[in-house]
Amino acid sequence: MGRTLAEKILQRHTDETISGAGQIARCKVSLVLANDITAPLAIKSFRAMGAKKVFDKDRVALVMDHFTPNKDIDSAEQVRGVREFAAEMGVTHYYEGGDCGVEHALLPELGLVGPGDVVVGADSHTCTYGGLGAFATGMGSTDIAAAMAMGETWFKVPPTIRVDIEGQMPKWLSAKDLVLATIGETGVSGALYKALEFGGSVVDAMDAESRMTIANMAIEAGGKVGLFPVDKVALDYARANGHPGCEPLAADADADYERRIRFDVTEMSPVVACPHLPDNVKPVEDVGEVVIHQSVIGSCTNGRISDLRAAAEILKGRKAAKGVRLIVLPATPRIWRQAMDEGLFAVFMDAGAVIGPPTCGPCLGGHMGILAKGERAIATTNRNFKGRMGSLESEVYLASPAVAAASAVAGRIIHPRDL
Amino acid sequence: MGRTLAEKILQRHTDETISGAGQIARCKVSLVLANDITAPLAIKSFRAMGAKKVFDKDRVALVMDHFTPNKDIDSAEQVRGVREFAAEMGVTHYYEGGDCGVEHALLPELGLVGPGDVVVGADSHTCTYGGLGAFATGMGSTDIAAAMAMGETWFKVPPTIRVDIEGQMPKWLSAKDLVLATIGETGVSGALYKALEFGGSVVDAMDAESRMTIANMAIEAGGKVGLFPVDKVALDYARANGHPGCEPLAADADADYERRIRFDVTEMSPVVACPHLPDNVKPVEDVGEVVIHQSVIGSCTNGRISDLRAAAEILKGRKAAKGVRLIVLPATPRIWRQAMDEGLFAVFMDAGAVIGPPTCGPCLGGHMGILAKGERAIATTNRNFKGRMGSLESEVYLASPAVAAASAVAGRIIHPRDL
Repeated sequence: MGRTLAEKILQRHTDETISGAGQIARCKVSLVLANDITAPLAIKSFRAMGAKKVFDKDRVALVMDHFTPNKDIDSAEQVRGVREFAAEMGVTHYYEGGDCGVEHALLPELGLVGPGDVVVGADSHTCTYGGLGAFATGMGSTDIAAAMAMGETWFKVPPTIRVDIEGQMPKWLSAKDLVLATIGETGVSGALYKALEFGGSVVDAMDAESRMTIANMAIEAGGKVGLFPVDKVALDYARANGHPGCEPLAADADADYERRIRFDVTEMSPVVACPHLPDNVKPVEDVGEVVIHQSVIGSCTNGRISDLRAAAEILKGRKAAKGVRLIVLPATPRIWRQAMDEGLFAVFMDAGAVIGPPTCGPCLGGHMGILAKGERAIATTNRNFKGRMGSLESEVYLASPAVAAASAVAGRIIHPRDL
Repeated sequence: MGRTLAEKILQRHTDETISGAGQIARCKVSLVLANDITAPLAIKSFRAMGAKKVFDKDRVALVMDHFTPNKDIDSAEQVRGVREFAAEMGVTHYYEGGDCGVEHALLPELGLVGPGDVVVGADSHTCTYGGLGAFATGMGSTDIAAAMAMGETWFKVPPTIRVDIEGQMPKWLSAKDLVLATIGETGVSGALYKALEFGGSVVDAMDAESRMTIANMAIEAGGKVGLFPVDKVALDYARANGHPGCEPLAADADADYERRIRFDVTEMSPVVACPHLPDNVKPVEDVGEVVIHQSVIGSCTNGRISDLRAAAEILKGRKAAKGVRLIVLPATPRIWRQAMDEGLFAVFMDAGAVIGPPTCGPCLGGHMGILAKGERAIATTNRNFKGRMGSLESEVYLASPAVAAASAVAGRIIHPRDL
């Protein structure tokens, strides 16, 4: 029996022989990540364990991205605690302020994560790096503390759901639509502690940013990881960003899959995940008349330059509807600068947008666009749980940058072709 | 006996004869202002009074600038309440999101306040418009509610302290230094319920933005208003921004002043207001070794294009010191766009800055840069009260954009010439 991609990547990080799903394997980790919300908890556990130093000061990343620039005294104190820990441990990759961005956009562009890595992070969307062929997953802060101290952790080798995406991508379809459709198919717990492995002709042709958008939301299906092959696309991206890369990796043709899902994208419409779960997915034409008050373009899912370009293509020469707050949050300083230099900011400003600094912003109800009672947002973010972006009586619809931009202009959820 | 500028402006708005300080005069107001913090209180009072409509839907401005983009559910609910009130009353000048900026920078550039006006606002820095020759002052929310309903209010005609500024402006001296020096002279309550009236050759030659910086901080001396003459500078600014203006206005030569202060700027150094009062003013050379963790450039005091240009002049080709968060907050969308188009953002990004949207930000401890215990900021804002920008155990030093920028580079408070 051949091996899945998950098995092949894990094998690179353990002396044990990975023989199949269910096995417990101890693996060395390439990088351990925490942010301004989770690092304080991990540090507390780290100290409680009696740990004195991190396993490798170059392999721990602490990214202060959620509530920064500090939104209140509590967030400022959290950041201070992490900053002091980073200084004490000599952590190289501590990011705050002008060099900081949304963790899952920042670490790939800094070349700190990439093909063949095993990455654990105290953040559920750590799975993003699977888009580059890394076995990357979120863990609780205690596990992260142990990994920070020891440089290794254990995994139960996950069974794999194979998702093949075939056909011709229509004009307005994007990676976000594909992952939402996948979650709609599996349900929010359909991939619980399983690997989602993406393949097929559409995946083969897909750029690295789109792959990361899809991998990012594997957790919304319950997935342990969302994996893409280590191919030329992944290796070119790694090389361009200074990551050493690894040998090409792909699942064996006779790998053992628990389930197979297949999409033909040719006739697919952009989709929207309606409140209050990411699996409540409908074609955008079928959501009916949904008036929105806010449109958010950003986050670790869709805050990259290709996302901003897609939004700008729609917004060029248009304006957000009266009564719609359009908030654009480029995910990293590099993306921010690039979007400005490419003229995208001029488009956004002409459209009436507020352009924020690189931050997770309102995605998880942090800051920079929290919703009041009765307010409804469309967002390129990754979760639409009840109260996720503010009031328990607010609503979030998840969509692609193109749909979020078009809906901002229309003042209601709309297919970009119908603008 | 001649008249002060305060008396002349008030006279334009009342049928009573203004005869001197201490008189109670009922005046018509040109504009009534409230923001996202104060409008909810004013609206509550408005309703408690049984008021049914605002006196003039074109003369009430509601600017959602303090905690926006909404930093949390409370701020989102406050904004929602104001938005609903604005819609119910048909208020023309309701600002939120992409067309919103810091109120005291926004209203002048929209031509909603200007020469000869009487403006009352539920915000202490309403006195900013005195830079254009408006009698503009902050009031409590109940008084603002009454003014919103009736279009008039009463004032006790203030006695006036005349401040004459003469000499040759040295290279690094700015309006901010002059107003800090004035406050250093009067103390924080030395002008309590008095008008500060600025004149002299330096004032005559001063641009409108600098005048607004000075008028903005009149309240930090306890002043009711900070006034500049209605001259060509003020009228040109008004005309350029669509305000109707008024006849030229200046104090009579034989006006009755309670006190006169005179500065010769020729030998003056930039100054810094040290913790924890704006009157704790020292020449920048005399503050000693003060390490900083954050530098904030923005606010209703110093978030205008000339302020950003002054900061960029220092920052060009330089970087913020390690450990310093440099936060730049252009005060309005127009300023934001202009700074970007002039290349100032490129300078700021190269320097490692975070560039935020137009918001009051951390100035009053709102968001976008709150300080933790033990942290120290230099800021172009207007108040350095204990805990103003965050923790009660943090410190704020007030300075000009040039000093704040130079200090960001040095990592400690420094005279720009010493960089």
